[in-house]
Amino acid sequence: MGNADLALTDMEGPHRVPLPPERPFLDTFRANLKETFFPDDPFRQFKNERGSRKVVSALQYFLPILEWAPKYSFGLFKSDLIAGITIASLAIPQGISYAKLANLPPVLGLYSSFVPPLVYAMMGSSKDLAVGTVAVASLLIASMLGKEVSAAENPGLYLKLAFTATFFAGVFEAALGLLRLGFIVDFLSHATIVGFMAGAATVVCLQQLKGMLGLQHFTTSTDLVSVMESVFTQTHQVKEGFCVFFQKQETRQTEKIMLSTFIVLCLYMLQWRWESVVLGSCFLFFLLLTRYLSKRNPKFFWISAAAPLTSVVLASLLVYLTRAENHGVQVIGYLKKGINPPSATSLEFSPPYIMIALKTGIITGVIALAEGIAVGRSFAMYKNYQIDGNKEMIAFGMMNIVGSLTSCYLTTGPFSRSAVNYNAGCKTAMSNVVMAIAVMITLLFLTPLFHYTPLVVLSAIIISAMLGLIDYEAAIHLWHVDKIDFCVCLGAYLGVVFGSVEIGLVVAVTISILRVLLFIARPRTTVLGNIPNSMVYRRVDQYPIAQSIPGIFILHIDAPIYFANASYLRERISRGIDDEEDALKTKGRTNLQYVILDLGAVGSIDTSGISMLEDLKKNLDRRGLQLVLANPGSEIMKKLDKSKVLEGIGHEWIFLTVAEAVGSCNFMLHTQKQADSNGTHDNMV
Amino acid sequence: MGNADLALTDMEGPHRVPLPPERPFLDTFRANLKETFFPDDPFRQFKNERGSRKVVSALQYFLPILEWAPKYSFGLFKSDLIAGITIASLAIPQGISYAKLANLPPVLGLYSSFVPPLVYAMMGSSKDLAVGTVAVASLLIASMLGKEVSAAENPGLYLKLAFTATFFAGVFEAALGLLRLGFIVDFLSHATIVGFMAGAATVVCLQQLKGMLGLQHFTTSTDLVSVMESVFTQTHQVKEGFCVFFQKQETRQTEKIMLSTFIVLCLYMLQWRWESVVLGSCFLFFLLLTRYLSKRNPKFFWISAAAPLTSVVLASLLVYLTRAENHGVQVIGYLKKGINPPSATSLEFSPPYIMIALKTGIITGVIALAEGIAVGRSFAMYKNYQIDGNKEMIAFGMMNIVGSLTSCYLTTGPFSRSAVNYNAGCKTAMSNVVMAIAVMITLLFLTPLFHYTPLVVLSAIIISAMLGLIDYEAAIHLWHVDKIDFCVCLGAYLGVVFGSVEIGLVVAVTISILRVLLFIARPRTTVLGNIPNSMVYRRVDQYPIAQSIPGIFILHIDAPIYFANASYLRERISRGIDDEEDALKTKGRTNLQYVILDLGAVGSIDTSGISMLEDLKKNLDRRGLQLVLANPGSEIMKKLDKSKVLEGIGHEWIFLTVAEAVGSCNFMLHTQKQADSNGTHDNMV
Repeated sequence: MGNADLALTDMEGPHRVPLPPERPFLDTFRANLKETFFPDDPFRQFKNERGSRKVVSALQYFLPILEWAPKYSFGLFKSDLIAGITIASLAIPQGISYAKLANLPPVLGLYSSFVPPLVYAMMGSSKDLAVGTVAVASLLIASMLGKEVSAAENPGLYLKLAFTATFFAGVFEAALGLLRLGFIVDFLSHATIVGFMAGAATVVCLQQLKGMLGLQHFTTSTDLVSVMESVFTQTHQVKEGFCVFFQKQETRQTEKIMLSTFIVLCLYMLQWRWESVVLGSCFLFFLLLTRYLSKRNPKFFWISAAAPLTSVVLASLLVYLTRAENHGVQVIGYLKKGINPPSATSLEFSPPYIMIALKTGIITGVIALAEGIAVGRSFAMYKNYQIDGNKEMIAFGMMNIVGSLTSCYLTTGPFSRSAVNYNAGCKTAMSNVVMAIAVMITLLFLTPLFHYTPLVVLSAIIISAMLGLIDYEAAIHLWHVDKIDFCVCLGAYLGVVFGSVEIGLVVAVTISILRVLLFIARPRTTVLGNIPNSMVYRRVDQYPIAQSIPGIFILHIDAPIYFANASYLRERISRGIDDEEDALKTKGRTNLQYVILDLGAVGSIDTSGISMLEDLKKNLDRRGLQLVLANPGSEIMKKLDKSKVLEGIGHEWIFLTVAEAVGSCNFMLHTQKQADSNGTHDNMV
Repeated sequence: MGNADLALTDMEGPHRVPLPPERPFLDTFRANLKETFFPDDPFRQFKNERGSRKVVSALQYFLPILEWAPKYSFGLFKSDLIAGITIASLAIPQGISYAKLANLPPVLGLYSSFVPPLVYAMMGSSKDLAVGTVAVASLLIASMLGKEVSAAENPGLYLKLAFTATFFAGVFEAALGLLRLGFIVDFLSHATIVGFMAGAATVVCLQQLKGMLGLQHFTTSTDLVSVMESVFTQTHQVKEGFCVFFQKQETRQTEKIMLSTFIVLCLYMLQWRWESVVLGSCFLFFLLLTRYLSKRNPKFFWISAAAPLTSVVLASLLVYLTRAENHGVQVIGYLKKGINPPSATSLEFSPPYIMIALKTGIITGVIALAEGIAVGRSFAMYKNYQIDGNKEMIAFGMMNIVGSLTSCYLTTGPFSRSAVNYNAGCKTAMSNVVMAIAVMITLLFLTPLFHYTPLVVLSAIIISAMLGLIDYEAAIHLWHVDKIDFCVCLGAYLGVVFGSVEIGLVVAVTISILRVLLFIARPRTTVLGNIPNSMVYRRVDQYPIAQSIPGIFILHIDAPIYFANASYLRERISRGIDDEEDALKTKGRTNLQYVILDLGAVGSIDTSGISMLEDLKKNLDRRGLQLVLANPGSEIMKKLDKSKVLEGIGHEWIFLTVAEAVGSCNFMLHTQKQADSNGTHDNMV
């Protein structure tokens, strides 16, 4: 039959699909394990090195500073110095604001910008990451710990729990890294993070209404509804006025409503502190303006970088001169001088509270990790160097463990600060060291200056930072590109805004995983046709020019065949064949004799899948159709062989390409009857 | 460049990969929905039919009896009659035994073989399924309800809960069918069911030790440990004798142990009722013998089918004559005459108990469904007719709802009974009607005959039936074919035997789903090479003859690109390129210029995947490498286009086949320098 095939398939007769060589179970097992947990092959640089060097490179692996410090030059230091000072000027106000957001003493924000950056500078593998606290994690700590312990009533215990949570977060992060489980972070998809961040930013902004409006009483829960309630129902007299107004029955419905809303608003304005509102709005406008300017022209990045510190200084001066703190403008007040006191003793491992600390630690840890690694990866990509996810996790973990022992709370690589760092032209992690030193100096000498800093300006700083996180363009992009991802994003957003941060996460991750499972459960099976004047067979729905071959039905399965889809595929394929036969009958064409399954896209198969193929074979035999397989992967071949299904199908009916399969089938169809085809095959192979 | 390609690719220049035509969102959405929930297209037979006919075929769809009853002939009835009587002779003793297993009044077993079969005969689409109760579900009911209510102390409430659970099971099954969620059952993989069934069978056999040994006190929990305890620690004097024996210090270690074990056994034999043991063993031997015989020669199926009834009759006679019930042989005792009383009033929906009933109903419902549908499918396959999974679910559901209102408990299509039915040559569901009538006659007139039936013979019947369910060959097969599936199977088995039925299920399903997620999270990326004298490119690890092309690196990704694997793939691919470049350097060969990604097996992609490709493109550009895509699916093309990544990569760098991609790349490599290649491309396309 070689001749016939010459025309139809390639230069030679059909290639055999070989059985993969028998490998001992343990080898494959080890290989799979390596591929699963060491995909980045971290030890490749140690290979073909001997004794002493091995130790050195091992040390360098865990402490990258040993790699770059020796090559460090004054030229590099100059750029790092500038970058370091710039991020410090951003770090100080942000640190204080986020600490307030977490209901922790403001000075903790400064502590957290001193020790952790030093740790990261030694262990981190990113050159652009600037270490610090982040708004979302701070908010999470506040909301999760706040459920158990009130920061207002029992600040001591609350502080302890915050340290403990940080400690657990660090341990968890380091463990993930050491156990090579970095890929767990990947399950927070891009869409999830977009929606989640936007939701968190919204919630954080809502929280700032307290500071902006100078409200005394505020809800501890973060969802939209309760925040709105506590903004618009400060006192009862308002409600009363509302009711009184509605006693007048003569007013007509519409104007009644309009009037009432108007009155209500006025009443509330009286509840709010106009000083704070004015002050806040001014600085918010100033900050947004600077952000806008430096967006317009990246060379002016320093404007927006310096803006927060500037506004803090201005606001403090203003308050100091006008004594505004006596007119209802709340200020930070006394900040303790001196660097981080040790906090090892105040870790709380006693039963009733350890669980909440553990839970908070793990959730905040994962969130912080996700942001930090995402940031690190993206900047590494700009400068085209690799970042080892697992190594980063260990660095983050150590950073937080050490932090929790030195009165710091959860830190990671915030996007805003790292972006400023990158724009300021940092060269190495040394910029973090510079920032740490600057913060240290502040802690030692400058804390009194923050006494008069009004909270409202901190709120303004937070809001302006948060507005940058609401990336509606990304959401629109998601809608255009992938509807399901948009649902994931929306789910995360709504979950966070109307439920809680955890709910948002759970919703998003669940949808994402369901989508994956659904893809597996409902794989696409498409009919293939021949692209004219070529040996190529492609999906007819994608390539309208593709033509079907009379008497031959070619199906393409583009998903692994698993228990979850085996029975679906069984029915789907037989239905496809039915449809095809009906179509042929109506057209009065030659009816089917061969069914070719293109397994090129079937990456993996399990026993359910194998038995599906077995059933299909039996079924087709009963219908007088010949099952032909094209381009099965080695795993499939192995399992077909092991399960003896291969004998059932016949090795001669398995081809390297669809083209060769079609070639042989055509040969059979044309030269002789179905009856003695098997005979020919035995000679053929 | 056409000439150069002529040699390299096919007859023509490279084919363009077209962009799929723009389809309105709603259309695609509807199509996906249809494919997900109506893959079997249940309404196809209604198409191109008008008014009245439509109604008829709609009725026929829900009541298949309307389809086959009109064509029913006496010839068919003869075979159905034989089959029906055969399964009845099996159904009566089995029904009683399983009812005992569920701690329910034995007569319920007979009730459950009367009404449900009639319902199924009308609604079921299988010709071979014989309806009845199953051991596993019975055991589940006993163990799950037993936790809340003791059947011994409060039989009335226990009975009510059993009916309620059955009702909920029915509602749940019907709902699954109506909501087209049949595929949920598919998540119980073949491996899961093998391990689960074996485990359940083991547990059921263990439970029978009570009957076989004639023990009075027995544990309610089903796990191995507690059963062994309650078998081997009936009384304390045994322990004492044991201790006493061990006071003698002079006896040597070995003989001490031997002696002790011997003595212990003797002591226990005295605790056990030797009459039951002897009787049970004899009948068990008899039943296993008949099973063996009819396995040897399928023509004698009736031997094993009739064996249970025979042994019941024999045993009852024996007991009646020897008055053995007075010598510690427990008998069924009084069975109420008459057919099913209504039980609608005894459904229990009050708060404290509804939850347990609901939980029991849903779990047992799913298990029963899985077994019934699997059985129906396999027999349908032998006779080559289709079974509609969702329609079957509705039938099972209705059957159990009606059953729960007529004092029946959970029924499905047991394998043993259906196999007998099939061997007995049943033709239609009429055999179920015959069985039902036979059982009805029994209920009306023959119940007194079962007064003297010893429980031990029922235990023997159950054990002999269960031993058939322990399919160790299947487990061995799993080990050979797919190690992970073997783990799933083992997990299910151990979970059921040492934990509980639910634990076993959860373990197995979790492992199965983790396996799927792991496949997605760690897709295989393999290097492709050219098969000599052909246009075919295949994995070099699978086809050792495949040769790499100098200057070109071809990677094949065989999984959808999702958030779960995007960052892994990003690193994996760049690492693959590094390795390749290192290898080339050592060999001193021409270094890379093109990286071809074969996307033929990438069935689906999400936004994370798209941005991964975008990053990859940027990364390669920085390294002076050209990214080339081969054979992307229409979904990928659409999303690449929508996300503007397509422009970044350049449509001219996307080819229909790897061969054509290689062709163009070679052309570039050979004819001119990299520099002006872009220019050529603009002309080319």
